[in-house]
Amino acid sequence: MSELNDRTRTSSGFYVTKEAPIQSDNPVPTPAAAPPDILRCAYMELVVTDLAASRAFYVDVLGLTVTEEDDEVIYLRSLEEFIHHNLVLRKGPVAAVAAFSYRVRSPEDLDRAVAFYTELGCRVERNPNGFVKGIGDSVRVEDPLGFPYEFFHDVEHVERLAWRYDLYTPGALVRLDHFNQVTPDVPRAVRHYQDLGFRVTEDIQDDEGTVYAAWMRRKPTVHDTAATGGDGPRMHHVAFATHEKHNILAICDKMGALRISDRIERGPGRHGVSNAFYLYILDPDGHRVEIYTQDYYTGDPDNPVVTWDVHDNQRRDWWGNPVVPSWYTEASLVLDLDGNPQPVIARTDTSEMAATIGADGFSYTREDDGDKGFKIGNQL
Amino acid sequence: MSELNDRTRTSSGFYVTKEAPIQSDNPVPTPAAAPPDILRCAYMELVVTDLAASRAFYVDVLGLTVTEEDDEVIYLRSLEEFIHHNLVLRKGPVAAVAAFSYRVRSPEDLDRAVAFYTELGCRVERNPNGFVKGIGDSVRVEDPLGFPYEFFHDVEHVERLAWRYDLYTPGALVRLDHFNQVTPDVPRAVRHYQDLGFRVTEDIQDDEGTVYAAWMRRKPTVHDTAATGGDGPRMHHVAFATHEKHNILAICDKMGALRISDRIERGPGRHGVSNAFYLYILDPDGHRVEIYTQDYYTGDPDNPVVTWDVHDNQRRDWWGNPVVPSWYTEASLVLDLDGNPQPVIARTDTSEMAATIGADGFSYTREDDGDKGFKIGNQL
Amino acid sequence: MSELNDRTRTSSGFYVTKEAPIQSDNPVPTPAAAPPDILRCAYMELVVTDLAASRAFYVDVLGLTVTEEDDEVIYLRSLEEFIHHNLVLRKGPVAAVAAFSYRVRSPEDLDRAVAFYTELGCRVERNPNGFVKGIGDSVRVEDPLGFPYEFFHDVEHVERLAWRYDLYTPGALVRLDHFNQVTPDVPRAVRHYQDLGFRVTEDIQDDEGTVYAAWMRRKPTVHDTAATGGDGPRMHHVAFATHEKHNILAICDKMGALRISDRIERGPGRHGVSNAFYLYILDPDGHRVEIYTQDYYTGDPDNPVVTWDVHDNQRRDWWGNPVVPSWYTEASLVLDLDGNPQPVIARTDTSEMAATIGADGFSYTREDDGDKGFKIGNQL
Amino acid sequence: MSELNDRTRTSSGFYVTKEAPIQSDNPVPTPAAAPPDILRCAYMELVVTDLAASRAFYVDVLGLTVTEEDDEVIYLRSLEEFIHHNLVLRKGPVAAVAAFSYRVRSPEDLDRAVAFYTELGCRVERNPNGFVKGIGDSVRVEDPLGFPYEFFHDVEHVERLAWRYDLYTPGALVRLDHFNQVTPDVPRAVRHYQDLGFRVTEDIQDDEGTVYAAWMRRKPTVHDTAATGGDGPRMHHVAFATHEKHNILAICDKMGALRISDRIERGPGRHGVSNAFYLYILDPDGHRVEIYTQDYYTGDPDNPVVTWDVHDNQRRDWWGNPVVPSWYTEASLVLDLDGNPQPVIARTDTSEMAATIGADGFSYTREDDGDKGFKIGNQL
Repeated sequence: MSELNDRTRTSSGFYVTKEAPIQSDNPVPTPAAAPPDILRCAYMELVVTDLAASRAFYVDVLGLTVTEEDDEVIYLRSLEEFIHHNLVLRKGPVAAVAAFSYRVRSPEDLDRAVAFYTELGCRVERNPNGFVKGIGDSVRVEDPLGFPYEFFHDVEHVERLAWRYDLYTPGALVRLDHFNQVTPDVPRAVRHYQDLGFRVTEDIQDDEGTVYAAWMRRKPTVHDTAATGGDGPRMHHVAFATHEKHNILAICDKMGALRISDRIERGPGRHGVSNAFYLYILDPDGHRVEIYTQDYYTGDPDNPVVTWDVHDNQRRDWWGNPVVPSWYTEASLVLDLDGNPQPVIARTDTSEMAATIGADGFSYTREDDGDKGFKIGNQL
Repeated sequence: MSELNDRTRTSSGFYVTKEAPIQSDNPVPTPAAAPPDILRCAYMELVVTDLAASRAFYVDVLGLTVTEEDDEVIYLRSLEEFIHHNLVLRKGPVAAVAAFSYRVRSPEDLDRAVAFYTELGCRVERNPNGFVKGIGDSVRVEDPLGFPYEFFHDVEHVERLAWRYDLYTPGALVRLDHFNQVTPDVPRAVRHYQDLGFRVTEDIQDDEGTVYAAWMRRKPTVHDTAATGGDGPRMHHVAFATHEKHNILAICDKMGALRISDRIERGPGRHGVSNAFYLYILDPDGHRVEIYTQDYYTGDPDNPVVTWDVHDNQRRDWWGNPVVPSWYTEASLVLDLDGNPQPVIARTDTSEMAATIGADGFSYTREDDGDKGFKIGNQL
Repeated sequence: MSELNDRTRTSSGFYVTKEAPIQSDNPVPTPAAAPPDILRCAYMELVVTDLAASRAFYVDVLGLTVTEEDDEVIYLRSLEEFIHHNLVLRKGPVAAVAAFSYRVRSPEDLDRAVAFYTELGCRVERNPNGFVKGIGDSVRVEDPLGFPYEFFHDVEHVERLAWRYDLYTPGALVRLDHFNQVTPDVPRAVRHYQDLGFRVTEDIQDDEGTVYAAWMRRKPTVHDTAATGGDGPRMHHVAFATHEKHNILAICDKMGALRISDRIERGPGRHGVSNAFYLYILDPDGHRVEIYTQDYYTGDPDNPVVTWDVHDNQRRDWWGNPVVPSWYTEASLVLDLDGNPQPVIARTDTSEMAATIGADGFSYTREDDGDKGFKIGNQL
Repeated sequence: MSELNDRTRTSSGFYVTKEAPIQSDNPVPTPAAAPPDILRCAYMELVVTDLAASRAFYVDVLGLTVTEEDDEVIYLRSLEEFIHHNLVLRKGPVAAVAAFSYRVRSPEDLDRAVAFYTELGCRVERNPNGFVKGIGDSVRVEDPLGFPYEFFHDVEHVERLAWRYDLYTPGALVRLDHFNQVTPDVPRAVRHYQDLGFRVTEDIQDDEGTVYAAWMRRKPTVHDTAATGGDGPRMHHVAFATHEKHNILAICDKMGALRISDRIERGPGRHGVSNAFYLYILDPDGHRVEIYTQDYYTGDPDNPVVTWDVHDNQRRDWWGNPVVPSWYTEASLVLDLDGNPQPVIARTDTSEMAATIGADGFSYTREDDGDKGFKIGNQL
């Protein structure tokens, strides 16, 4: 996130700034305890209501590799992964997210996680045997924003299948890329995740300083997670990476062939934010999965923060194709540590959808242009 | 076009049939004279209102090669072409199409063209020096459907630049692929173009036998031209081919970078019809250009005709992404041989847009499924 | 093939000419009978010595679709094909080619084929039930050059699987593209195949007029078959097309993963001749298969014939990568109509390998450059 | 590098181990001083003998962006870079490398660099204004292996052009990926660079423990630099990344079109080591440039180290295509801090070329297979 009065307009129409201290009316306190040293987003645990249907989606359609499975749980990984899994599908009564799990640098970082969240007054649980198979000593918390976060270091190694081209499908998923969280107050979330060690890479704001979304990273890509403004805590999507753009198109083609094109929600397209090529699809429970490729290196400490004007019609899709309303409004519930859904709190700041679509909102293609840029919105 | 009672449903959800005699209430008579032997669609002559703006679009954005130009006319070709041009931009007061031009096999085919159209009572003009530079002896007609058709054989050869990779752009256009014509009565048009020697490869129908569109070829691709049901005669689009899908994505990316993403009308996407990958963009006058790649070989005389149900939500976009309304309603005027716009006659058959979108229409993703499949239409 | 004294040098370093009458010291007579109207190369019948090993190669590695199979024969097709097969694998004692099979426009063309070859004194057999499953009335001949040619029109239609993206592999083969025949006297072969209706698109010559190879087409691609100078009659390769270049790279990657990279003989690379992207691999019997994509349209009667200088180091590989010697010397036997291998007659003209590699030959990268261009040859 | 007795064979034919302490007969001492915290390889300074020829190669052929230039020096960057440059071309009498430059995390890391190398007895120079434009306070050293290493933090920011698709070429270079250094004693080099903070990701060894090459990283890719066994200190290559494989093929195609295909030294191909897609080309002075895409994430501290058997014919090219001898033997001189070439010391350990090619060496495609796998080597 960025100070609007210190930004530089680029030749591409967005702004770059330095990462700035976040202003929040209602900040989560910054603990005195040091945060754990997070390496990367590592896996998501999803509760699904029909395990067979979910398996068909993630294994048969998307081609994820089954590391291990039984009647209750399926452990899946991408082709370049060497840890036990990137996705856990657990059968349950209500579709939801049970954990956003991050790998930390060392076993000692689990102690740091306990201290960090304990100081914040959060509920913390530690399980030396892990909460799921393949993972050892783990800490799970209900974080100050209501999200179930997990931290672990110990993990079972499995074979990295990157060279096993005999196993590749046309839409091969090679890596877990990031999570995306829906939360009502984006600056509050960003400030807290900065305390946890995340760095902001891009955000969407308006001239009044309303923040609509922000992208934050540990590994040097555009993000390990993002805060999307909306009713929350909810999970917006989990994203897997492919090597090339044609791999993403192949997933669309296959979903057409399987006559499940109605599970393609948005895209494919080129993001403005992140500059990545993307696709959003929906699993049988409506959990949103992004397929993503080719963002950029962000690992320098002075990596320029990119700020997009919420009215820039190319911020979400560089080609100006519309964001479908469901993408703004729908998201998955998240669970507390007892497995019950967290209550959803409404966003009170302006919604990005309202700000940019239809009678109340506007967007532009060229900044000095009066024409509205939301192409389909003008027409339907 | 196909007999609905003799069709076979494929595992992909559409039908295959044999090409059938067309039923038309109001047929154009079949001349006794043999038609000219058409090789392929060869070039389109477009009237544009701002030659510099059009040059910026076709040369600077799309990368077509200028064979020759002056203050009034620009002659452009694609990288694999060896004839003088595939596109003529001529400055004029009203944006329109001056000619759909086809190359014929031999000089004698021009005599056949004269006889064929003369017998039909059409206005016919022959110019031994050609109507444009680079082309010799040519015949232009106002065809029975009101379209300005041209036929030529003699043409100036220029260098085929296919090996000149130093000239390629990321979105390189390598070949003119096809035309697309809007006409009120599709069966009438198809029957006439069959008389002219075209073969039907695909069509869109409903169970009542209404024909919404049909694709017709001379060279063994899915089409050299198509008849799209709507108010006409008008020109729906002219299409250029790229080698690969990423070339089409690169055009989108570049139009975003140039902040002209509002000139991306529809796509990119995968067609159901033709199985090609596509993009529709608009030139400064609103002439629609398709960028297209990877349809299939159709050159056998018994090539199966593919028939799509108008309610199949994947017929126009295999991924079920919506067809924007402007794509159904907007098209370019065509000129008579005096250079005046042909009057536009309204379609009286059901419109495809009405049949498939919104309150009056419906579409499906799975044939046995009650859910409507027009995803954005459901949401906006 | 071209008249060297009437050629034009292009900016890419090769020459274009018009197709010229072929000079041959020992021509096959031109029959008075009209040739059959050939549509395209349609399938090859290969004799293989280990049917299971061949199935593993063509089905498991390359992903061809099994239309039908039993203990003796496997019928395979590519994804965009609607006729019964593009490849027949028949178990037999000696690896060889039993038929180069072409589809003709009409049943009457079979009568023409009989008359044409009978007049030439060739052995001709006609089988109204076809020589293989899925094909009806067929004519097989031992052609004047010793090759087993087949012609058919009647064929069983099967589903064109082009839209079945759920069946695609990363290296999906979509179409049979061409054959390539090794024959000692290239001008003699070209002259004969012109009599059969083929058109020359490209060739390789030297300044003395020696012809090393020529490419000939019926469908409007660079070739349906080619004549490669060498000891013959033998089969050099059979080629399948992919949609994109990454599909070909995926086949290489998969062969690496399966630890059969020693069956990659040459490539991948960009051809000079044809401008296509290519790969040559070897099946378990050593039958050579090319994977090929993106040549250019050649359907106009005055399509410029491209002539490459045999010393141009980019003629066979546009990037100047070496042609391995086995590619010049190895080829498959062909069978007579009794199923016995045809005797192989040595080429007496200069061999392309000798003309361009090593102590006796030379090649250049830039025509005015003294440096030798055969990069690895200089080094090993 | 890895302990051979603790390795696990993968299903792909190579081995994985944990990173192990390096055994060296002649180790560089480990300083007590902490090393600087290196972020990534940042730029290389090349001395070139003909600045105009080098500009034509790096700007006109490869499309790098000129940040700044004068008659003596050209500063170039890739499209996703936000620091002043990734490559400096400086006119000079002898083609050589003046600096391998790394960016460090903070200004204080320069003090650490001074202390680290001073303790090692190396020549150290610090210039608070930088040794080149665009860079501030910098430290240059002659490292214990004879390489000119530079460290800096302060740098001028320039616009990251990632979104400027109007500037992209078909072979667009988006990022500096890595350096590669030739050094006689690989274990000695690896041990020293581990002291400097690098982590080993892959290596090539034989059963006797001879180490032929090792790859080392700071940023979480396969490498920021590599140590290749050979006469040194010399620079083997500098590598830039593209987004996709077709971008690399486009560079080959363009070099063919420009008739400089003799500057394509090796590839394109798929590496075994790193699993990346690659191409090696030579600039006008013979400096080797790699174009590289799609290796994998290596940022976890327990990232499995991959060890390749030097006799595995797929280690250097996954498709088994030959490594040309010049790739093993040729490399660029490196300069001392006075600008004089460092003397080159011969490797005394077995050379990889000798171990694997020709009469003295051998390689295999399948480990249990007696056949030699160096395909062209067997044939020429």
